[in-house]
Amino acid sequence: MATAKDVPYHLIYWPGIPGRGEHIRLVLEEAGAAYSDTAFTEGGIGEVLAFIQGETPDDGINPPVFAPPILKHGELVISQTPNILQYLGGRLGLVPDPEKDRDGLYRVNSLALTALDGLSNEPHDCHHPIASGLYYEDQKPESKRRSEDYVKNRLPRFLTYFERVLRSRSSGEGPWLYGGNLTYADLVLFQCVDGLKFMFPKAMAKLEREGEHAKVFALHQAVAERPRIAAYLKSPRRQKYSNGIYRYYEELDIEP
Amino acid sequence: MATAKDVPYHLIYWPGIPGRGEHIRLVLEEAGAAYSDTAFTEGGIGEVLAFIQGETPDDGINPPVFAPPILKHGELVISQTPNILQYLGGRLGLVPDPEKDRDGLYRVNSLALTALDGLSNEPHDCHHPIASGLYYEDQKPESKRRSEDYVKNRLPRFLTYFERVLRSRSSGEGPWLYGGNLTYADLVLFQCVDGLKFMFPKAMAKLEREGEHAKVFALHQAVAERPRIAAYLKSPRRQKYSNGIYRYYEELDIEP
Repeated sequence: MATAKDVPYHLIYWPGIPGRGEHIRLVLEEAGAAYSDTAFTEGGIGEVLAFIQGETPDDGINPPVFAPPILKHGELVISQTPNILQYLGGRLGLVPDPEKDRDGLYRVNSLALTALDGLSNEPHDCHHPIASGLYYEDQKPESKRRSEDYVKNRLPRFLTYFERVLRSRSSGEGPWLYGGNLTYADLVLFQCVDGLKFMFPKAMAKLEREGEHAKVFALHQAVAERPRIAAYLKSPRRQKYSNGIYRYYEELDIEP
Repeated sequence: MATAKDVPYHLIYWPGIPGRGEHIRLVLEEAGAAYSDTAFTEGGIGEVLAFIQGETPDDGINPPVFAPPILKHGELVISQTPNILQYLGGRLGLVPDPEKDRDGLYRVNSLALTALDGLSNEPHDCHHPIASGLYYEDQKPESKRRSEDYVKNRLPRFLTYFERVLRSRSSGEGPWLYGGNLTYADLVLFQCVDGLKFMFPKAMAKLEREGEHAKVFALHQAVAERPRIAAYLKSPRRQKYSNGIYRYYEELDIEP
């Protein structure tokens, strides 16, 4: 098989923003996996565009993909953030061992999907509530209104949910969401909290100060301190937040 | 194990709307699986509310869930539509056989996630662009604007993508998205097209008439003709569209 263990992973994602690709990078970095990344390869953006404009050859094996992130691994080409995370999580030891906990991977997937919905997709829609194809500047009043609702209602609700998960017995000992061991869902939640601190600093500082979501913030810290993640965060491979999912607009930095 | 093959599935979802639960029902119905459904059980809504209000006991195995649909199967409790679909798809023969096509399930999952994103979540946001916690009546001008963009840009783009998938060699012979066999991704796309026909009848009729997405509409028809699905669609278990994901508002039925 061309997808043998030593074939490097290849991430196809927009250069210049962490974006959804960042969830994939964190899994690869935590596992110390060999990978290449169009964010840092000559002609990388051309590779992204070829995929989404449908210029990639019909290889008879892989369906066309709609949007990045895209993962190539040997002959396999797959898209969709949670799908790529599952694939990598299973190969790189970031899901429960199915021999010991047969359905644990579905529990982990529930958690990752919920974090991506509420703490990544919804923040994106805070600056693009009307149309992803329009500029932010063309939907500013609507963005303000949506962000106010998000900061007041949705953000605390999702953080309260994850705090409840972390306090449940199913989370096991230690700082992680499920079963006492680090999974890719923890890396997803880290990245979401990290991006939200950049996007809504006032609201996130207040929530952190109040202490009701202490375990969520502690998880963020615990991931940041993982040796490989700490090294990655200091490296040039960790791109700065800019015009991706998590953006800073002063007028959207709602006072909660 | 409590999750033996003959333990019935239990779907926990809001009564009165097809909603996201409908994707789960279609998989169960196509497979002829034994299941119960809070839409049709005494006190069903109480069961949904107990979960989302955090009143369900911490069983030490399953993390709390954020929102329905929720699937109980023996001891297992999982949430998130694409996650439940994967779990059921694997058990009920609606994913490629991993012995013959090891990574086919990830390709199918890409397709299902893309349909859910673009043809279910985005339509939902057409009538709730500002806040899911507000009434439609409180966000009518924004809904109009978002729906216009959706019908003009996003809807044709997603249908064009799925048409491309259906015309690719990876779809194999016959009407299905991947590998020549029915998978849960086909059932997802069926439900999306079906709901969109209800929500945006003018736009969908025009797209169907123009014939550029003939294979997408043919897939919708082919699923509707599956014997078990045909029987289900005629049964009282198939709930009418109302105030769920796919809603009909005359002012949002955009002339494309």
